[in-house]
Amino acid sequence: MADIDTLLEQPGAGSHGTTARRGLKHVIESQQFTVPLLMELFERSRGMERVVARGGSLDYQNKIMATLFYEPSTRTRFAFEAAMYRLGGRVLSTEQARVFSSAMEGEQVEDSIRIVAGYADVIVIRHHQEGGARRAAEVSPVPVINAGDGEGGQHPTQALLDLYTIYRERPLNGLSVALIGELDKGRTVRSLAYLLAKFERVKIFFVAPPPLQMKPDILEYLDRHGVCYELEAEIDRVVGEVDVVYQTRIRPERVADLPSLRKYAIDSTVLRRMKPSAMILHPLPRTVELDKTVDSDPRAMYFRQAINGLYVRMALLTMLLDKV
Amino acid sequence: MADIDTLLEQPGAGSHGTTARRGLKHVIESQQFTVPLLMELFERSRGMERVVARGGSLDYQNKIMATLFYEPSTRTRFAFEAAMYRLGGRVLSTEQARVFSSAMEGEQVEDSIRIVAGYADVIVIRHHQEGGARRAAEVSPVPVINAGDGEGGQHPTQALLDLYTIYRERPLNGLSVALIGELDKGRTVRSLAYLLAKFERVKIFFVAPPPLQMKPDILEYLDRHGVCYELEAEIDRVVGEVDVVYQTRIRPERVADLPSLRKYAIDSTVLRRMKPSAMILHPLPRTVELDKTVDSDPRAMYFRQAINGLYVRMALLTMLLDKV
Amino acid sequence: MADIDTLLEQPGAGSHGTTARRGLKHVIESQQFTVPLLMELFERSRGMERVVARGGSLDYQNKIMATLFYEPSTRTRFAFEAAMYRLGGRVLSTEQARVFSSAMEGEQVEDSIRIVAGYADVIVIRHHQEGGARRAAEVSPVPVINAGDGEGGQHPTQALLDLYTIYRERPLNGLSVALIGELDKGRTVRSLAYLLAKFERVKIFFVAPPPLQMKPDILEYLDRHGVCYELEAEIDRVVGEVDVVYQTRIRPERVADLPSLRKYAIDSTVLRRMKPSAMILHPLPRTVELDKTVDSDPRAMYFRQAINGLYVRMALLTMLLDKV
Repeated sequence: MADIDTLLEQPGAGSHGTTARRGLKHVIESQQFTVPLLMELFERSRGMERVVARGGSLDYQNKIMATLFYEPSTRTRFAFEAAMYRLGGRVLSTEQARVFSSAMEGEQVEDSIRIVAGYADVIVIRHHQEGGARRAAEVSPVPVINAGDGEGGQHPTQALLDLYTIYRERPLNGLSVALIGELDKGRTVRSLAYLLAKFERVKIFFVAPPPLQMKPDILEYLDRHGVCYELEAEIDRVVGEVDVVYQTRIRPERVADLPSLRKYAIDSTVLRRMKPSAMILHPLPRTVELDKTVDSDPRAMYFRQAINGLYVRMALLTMLLDKV
Repeated sequence: MADIDTLLEQPGAGSHGTTARRGLKHVIESQQFTVPLLMELFERSRGMERVVARGGSLDYQNKIMATLFYEPSTRTRFAFEAAMYRLGGRVLSTEQARVFSSAMEGEQVEDSIRIVAGYADVIVIRHHQEGGARRAAEVSPVPVINAGDGEGGQHPTQALLDLYTIYRERPLNGLSVALIGELDKGRTVRSLAYLLAKFERVKIFFVAPPPLQMKPDILEYLDRHGVCYELEAEIDRVVGEVDVVYQTRIRPERVADLPSLRKYAIDSTVLRRMKPSAMILHPLPRTVELDKTVDSDPRAMYFRQAINGLYVRMALLTMLLDKV
Repeated sequence: MADIDTLLEQPGAGSHGTTARRGLKHVIESQQFTVPLLMELFERSRGMERVVARGGSLDYQNKIMATLFYEPSTRTRFAFEAAMYRLGGRVLSTEQARVFSSAMEGEQVEDSIRIVAGYADVIVIRHHQEGGARRAAEVSPVPVINAGDGEGGQHPTQALLDLYTIYRERPLNGLSVALIGELDKGRTVRSLAYLLAKFERVKIFFVAPPPLQMKPDILEYLDRHGVCYELEAEIDRVVGEVDVVYQTRIRPERVADLPSLRKYAIDSTVLRRMKPSAMILHPLPRTVELDKTVDSDPRAMYFRQAINGLYVRMALLTMLLDKV
C-alpha cells in the first residue's frame, strides 16, 4: 500500500501549498479558497489518484471522520467515506442525523457538534438549514466540512471537484462556461460560480427559465470581482461557444410543462452544436435534462467528475488532518 | 491474525477451483454456479472457518465493499459486512438506499452503480425490483452481488449458504429435500431449487398450500434438467422420508386461518416423524411455522446455517476480489 | 499508536481489577457493578485517556462490535462506535434495528441476537422495551451491553460515565448530589442512583415536580441499602448545599406550563447559589432546563462528561473482550 508522503514528493507537488493552507481550518464556503490554495489542493488530488491506483494508504488509520447528515445523501456521504477509507481512516456515520435528538426537538446543532468533536477528528456535515455548517464550525474544536447546507446555501466540495475536473483537462484562465438549470436554488452552481470568479478572463453564461435564474447575491459578487457574465433563457444561444457545459437538474414541478423543461435539456441536437473540445459536466443525479444518449459522447465527463470527488476529498482531508 | 493463503494451502483446498471461477464476475442468480465452482466455493468456505477461528485476517484491508440496500435487511447486511471485516476490509453502508436520490424519483439504479463503482471494489445490492441486481451488474466495472431482488427474484448467497450447510453434513448427490412454506414468493427456495438441480439423484418435495405452490418457471427448469420432484399439500406425507426439511415462513395474511397455517408448522409432533439423521433448515426470521421447542433438537441447524453465511460470503468475496 | 497494555502498566493501574471483573460477562444494569469493579473500570478509563492522547490503538483490530439500536440515538451510538474505533476495532451498525424484521412483526429479539452473535464479538443493544437487553443477554454467547432499554429501564453506561466524571474530581464517599428533572421516566438517573448507593455517606436529593418524582422501586432500594435521600419539589432548597447538581431534561408536555418548567431550570440565578466547588452534570440533549449561559461557568462539566463516555466505554469494551 502507498505511503502518501512519498507519492506527493513528485517534482512540483506541494510547491504552492504549505503556506497557502495555513489558514484552512474548516471548509464552509467556496469563496474561502484562494488560487494558491486551490492549486495545492489540485496537486494533492493528483497525488491521490496515484495513492488509489496503488491500493490506498494506511497513513490515517488512527483518524476518525464523522459524517453527520441531517438530510440524506448517500452519494455524497459515500464519496467522503470512501475518501477516508482510502486514506486508511475510520468512519462514524449517520444517514439521518435529525433523529440525533428525536425526543428533543429543540436541540441545537452546536450541542451536537461539541459532543461529536469529542469522538471524531473531522466532521462532515450536511444540514437542512442554510448556515448550519457555519454554526457547526463556530463551536467545533475539530475541522468541519460543509457537505451542503440548505437549498440556497453552498456545497463547496462539489464545486471543488467540478473545478478539478476542468483543471485536469484545460487551463482555468480564459474559460468560457455555461451553467444551466434551476440556478436560483442550486447550491452546487452557486459554489462553482464563486470559484470560477477567482480566475482570469472567465466568462459565465447563466442559462435558466427566467423565474429560476441565478440570484442577485452571486451576480453582485461577480460584478464586484469584475467577472464577465450573461443571463440567458435559451440554451441554443450559448452552447456553441463555451468550453464547459455545466448542466444541473430542473425539477419538473418548477416549470410550466414538460416541453419547457426539455428546452433546457442536453440531447443529440445540442451535442451537435457543441464545440468538439467542450466538456459536459453534471453533478448528478439527473432526470430528463441530460439524455442517456449523451453518456457515450467523449465530451461527457460526469462519471469522471464523480470519481474525481474521491481524490479531491482525500486531498482535502489530508490538508485538514495534518494541521491537527 | 491469519494469512488467508496459508490457510487455504491445506491439502485438497483450491484443487477444483482456479479454472472454474474464471467466469465468475458477478453473483446474480444461483444457476450461474457450476458444480466445480460450488466445490471451490465450499472448500474456500471451510478455509474461512479456520481464518475466523484464528481471529480473522487483514489481507483485504485496502478493499472497500459497498452495501446498497434499497430495502432494509439488517440480517443480510450484517452477514456481508462481518464477512468483509473478518477479511480486514472496509464497508460503505446504506440501510435505505431508496433515499439515495430522494429528491429525484427518476434516478435509475444504473447511474447509482456507475458512481458507487468509483468508490468501492465490490457492490452488494438488495433491490426492491426483480432484475435490479442484473441491471446493476450490466453497467458495473466492479463485481456486483445480488443480496435479494424483488419478491419473485433470487437471493443466491442465501441458497449458497443453505447448500453449504447441507454439504458440511452429507453428500449432495442422492439428497432428498422437502421445501416447505410460501413457495411462490420465496426467493430463497427458488434460488435453492436451482442449485439442488445441479446434483445427481436429488429428489425435491414442494410442500405448500396449493395457492402458494412453487411457480411453473422453476418446475419447468427441473423438468428440463431431469430432476425428480413432487408437489405436496401435506407436511405429514413427506417429512418421514427426507434428509433435509427446509422450512420457510408463511405470512399469516396469505392463508385462510391460523389452523391452516399451523398445518405447515414444525413442532414436536413433526419432529417425532422425522428421520433421526435429518436436518432442519430455515433462512430466518421465523414466526409460528417453526416452534421454539425445535431449537434444542440436535437436528435443528438454522443457527449454524446463519453463521455459515459468514464463511460462504467471505469465500465469495475473496473469489471476486482476487480477480480484480 | 499506543499499545494498551503498556499504558495500563502504570503504577497502581489494574491493581483492583483482575479478580473483580471475573464475573463481568454482560453489562445490563448498574447494580451489578461492585465498588472494586467500578474502581478497576475507572482506572482503566484513565488509561484510555492516555491511549486516545497517543492516537488510539490497533490492539483490537480483529474484533467486531455490533450496535443494534431498536430506537435511534446517534449520540450514544457514536460514543460506543468511537470507543471501538479508538481501540482499533470494527463496527457493524444499525440506526433502526426495528426494520431488522420489517416483514415479520413477530420476530423476537432472542433470534436476532443468536444470529448477530455469530457475526460480532460484542453486541451493544438499545431496545424500546424494558428488559430487552436482559432478554438479549440470556441467549447471547458474546457479551451484551445495554445502551438503554425502555422508558423506565436502565442506561448503565451513562451512569458509569456520570460517576467517572465525578470520580475524576472528588472522592465518591461522602458525596451530596441533587438529581433534578423528569425522574420517574429517567433511566439515566435511575441507573445513577443505583451506583451512588454503593458508596459511603452519600446523600441524594430527588428534585422534581411531585407527579414526576422518582419511583418507589429506587427509593425502596435506597432504604434497603441505608442510603440517605430526600424528595424535594424546589431546586432552591438544595442547590446551595450539594457537591453535584445532576440536571436532566423535562419534556414540556409533562408539566402544566412553561413557568413551572423554568422553576426546575439552571440559570444564572441558580449558579449564584451553588457552591464554588460544585459540579453541574447533564446527560444531554437539553432544552430549556439548562441555559446556555451556564456553558461558560467553570462548574459546567457536561461536555467533559460526554468525552468521558468515550474513555469509560473503551475501558468497558476491553474488560469484556479480554475475557473472550
